[in-house]
Amino acid sequence: MNATNDLITVPRGLKNVIVTDTRIGDVRGSEGFYHYRQYDATQLARTERFEDVWHLMYRGALPDAAESAAFAKRIGELRVLDGPTVDLLRRVVTPAVEPLAALRVALAAAGILERPLFDLSEEERTDAALRYTALAPTIVAAAHRLSRGLDVIDADPTAAHAADYLRMSTGSTDAAAVEALQTYLITTIDHGFNASTFAGRVVASSGSDMTSSILGALGAFLGPLHGGAPGRALAALDEIGDPTNTREWVRSKVAGGEVIMGFGHAVYRTHDPRAELLKEVVTQRYDSPLVRQATAVEAEIESAINELKPGRKLYANVEFYAGVLMSEVGLPPEMFTPTFGVARIVGWTANILEQAAERKILRPVARYVGPEPQQA
Amino acid sequence: MNATNDLITVPRGLKNVIVTDTRIGDVRGSEGFYHYRQYDATQLARTERFEDVWHLMYRGALPDAAESAAFAKRIGELRVLDGPTVDLLRRVVTPAVEPLAALRVALAAAGILERPLFDLSEEERTDAALRYTALAPTIVAAAHRLSRGLDVIDADPTAAHAADYLRMSTGSTDAAAVEALQTYLITTIDHGFNASTFAGRVVASSGSDMTSSILGALGAFLGPLHGGAPGRALAALDEIGDPTNTREWVRSKVAGGEVIMGFGHAVYRTHDPRAELLKEVVTQRYDSPLVRQATAVEAEIESAINELKPGRKLYANVEFYAGVLMSEVGLPPEMFTPTFGVARIVGWTANILEQAAERKILRPVARYVGPEPQQA
Repeated sequence: MNATNDLITVPRGLKNVIVTDTRIGDVRGSEGFYHYRQYDATQLARTERFEDVWHLMYRGALPDAAESAAFAKRIGELRVLDGPTVDLLRRVVTPAVEPLAALRVALAAAGILERPLFDLSEEERTDAALRYTALAPTIVAAAHRLSRGLDVIDADPTAAHAADYLRMSTGSTDAAAVEALQTYLITTIDHGFNASTFAGRVVASSGSDMTSSILGALGAFLGPLHGGAPGRALAALDEIGDPTNTREWVRSKVAGGEVIMGFGHAVYRTHDPRAELLKEVVTQRYDSPLVRQATAVEAEIESAINELKPGRKLYANVEFYAGVLMSEVGLPPEMFTPTFGVARIVGWTANILEQAAERKILRPVARYVGPEPQQA
Repeated sequence: MNATNDLITVPRGLKNVIVTDTRIGDVRGSEGFYHYRQYDATQLARTERFEDVWHLMYRGALPDAAESAAFAKRIGELRVLDGPTVDLLRRVVTPAVEPLAALRVALAAAGILERPLFDLSEEERTDAALRYTALAPTIVAAAHRLSRGLDVIDADPTAAHAADYLRMSTGSTDAAAVEALQTYLITTIDHGFNASTFAGRVVASSGSDMTSSILGALGAFLGPLHGGAPGRALAALDEIGDPTNTREWVRSKVAGGEVIMGFGHAVYRTHDPRAELLKEVVTQRYDSPLVRQATAVEAEIESAINELKPGRKLYANVEFYAGVLMSEVGLPPEMFTPTFGVARIVGWTANILEQAAERKILRPVARYVGPEPQQA
């Protein structure tokens, strides 16, 4: 830009660069702890309803009984998809289309008349966030079923969010499955300042509309470097088969320089608290071959890594048990990442609302390193 | 995040923070100069075809005659919109829908089966960029005409890009108008590391797909803090009416603490080279009341600012003459920002391609400033 000597050099990829202040939450990697607002996130996942944590993310406080009922009622109403959007999904969804790619189209269509965030009051911005966030499970479930040639299951505005999502996706109303899924969804709402959240905030910082900001976050979420694809860990369990094959499997991965999917994390230097909670949920609720295989393989992988790379502590991350949990509640692997998205969109929109309130554009610079230009 | 003492504090909004290296171009604000690759951008706008500058942006060199013909042929073919996307536009576009909101839907639909950028070769990534960038004028023009209740004008794959855009938008094939518009479009392809370009690169850095990356850029572009809405300066000319009213108009704006639309720029400390070129184009080509009014008002505004704020140099920026030019070539005000987008998408995709080649995620951090969380 204009005055080269004013430019500020920082680590590549903006690593460790503070881009904004936030009151939404944080991850303490060395403590194996993360929180939403002032609450331990895994504690919330054990005790609260999804809608109440959503309220906490947007408003900064858990709702009282009356607020909780009103908020859940509003979300239920907003979860119902209009006819034209269902028709649109019928037109664009083919068997090859992934639910999150369909979500991108449906959100763009739903937001076609949206106004810029800076033209809206805080209340109107929150309304817009609620609207798209509430619609996400309905769109994802409908797209999934259409891609499989199944009938779309309409939303029930009187149902709880997690329960309705499971029913719209699979038809199941199993109470134990709903509870397990709700725990997973709350666990996954937010996780510090991740890449998709950053992308959503960058778009929002220009004052653009809620749809554009969500599409920015969703876009980054779809990238392979974003991380957190619960399907990969389950695929590894499939590949390993009997737990006694684990050591050999780890050995070949390590020899090939490959990553062990479902193990290790960029921020956690100790156990991933999400993995611990989800393991607890699946082992308490499901005495199944998959759960027995997963716990045995986890122990084998930890011990094999200890043996092959002494001193290198690698623990199961959220992916490892997320896939197991989603599989046990009846979701097919192609719905694992979309289900993650249905939870994370709450975190995205909470961050977008916080960014919009700042009214300050995020606009860094690039350093030109090409050939010297010819001036006329 | 985990180790607070490692975090790096930078100016708010990432101002002056170098986020990446680039070979695509730069702005030298104190010199009143900007360039694409190694060429003076306004020089390119004077002499080159839009497609050839596009080739320069993607490939780093102007094409030779054979490359130029092949590149233009490919763009022409890709500019043709398929039937299902036109049908989709017919369904979603109402009179209230803006062309760029329709572009968001149509691009999301066109990219519904797209693969992540990191799964593609450089050639495949460039093909994806070409495809969506070539479609943008067709979608924008069709959406505009549908919102007005007019027939859609199909693309002509044998036409030049700027000419076909004008014809699809307005029906005009006037050669002078095409030349003037092409100059504007080239002028606007890129301009250093602007906010929409940054948003596109953030999404691309995760390895996401081309559609998602473009939607990120387009999202930021729609925000009121992005800047560069050519309609506002023309609205100011309307408001002023006779140039003799200018001084009083400027006085009331300054007294009210308002910005003078079309004047001043965050980076240029001298004349905006884009404004100078566009002024030259319109004054040479159009001896119209609007052009006479614009040049008279420009002179009056400069002199009024000099009088009211001595020492504060404010010059006409690109917006001021962009609106005049687009108006003279027959584009209605609601097509000014979409036309800007039809040019800028070339810059976005060039930047997205550069970012994807880096394979490094942009992931800064946030500083948690809320209440201390309760640990269980």
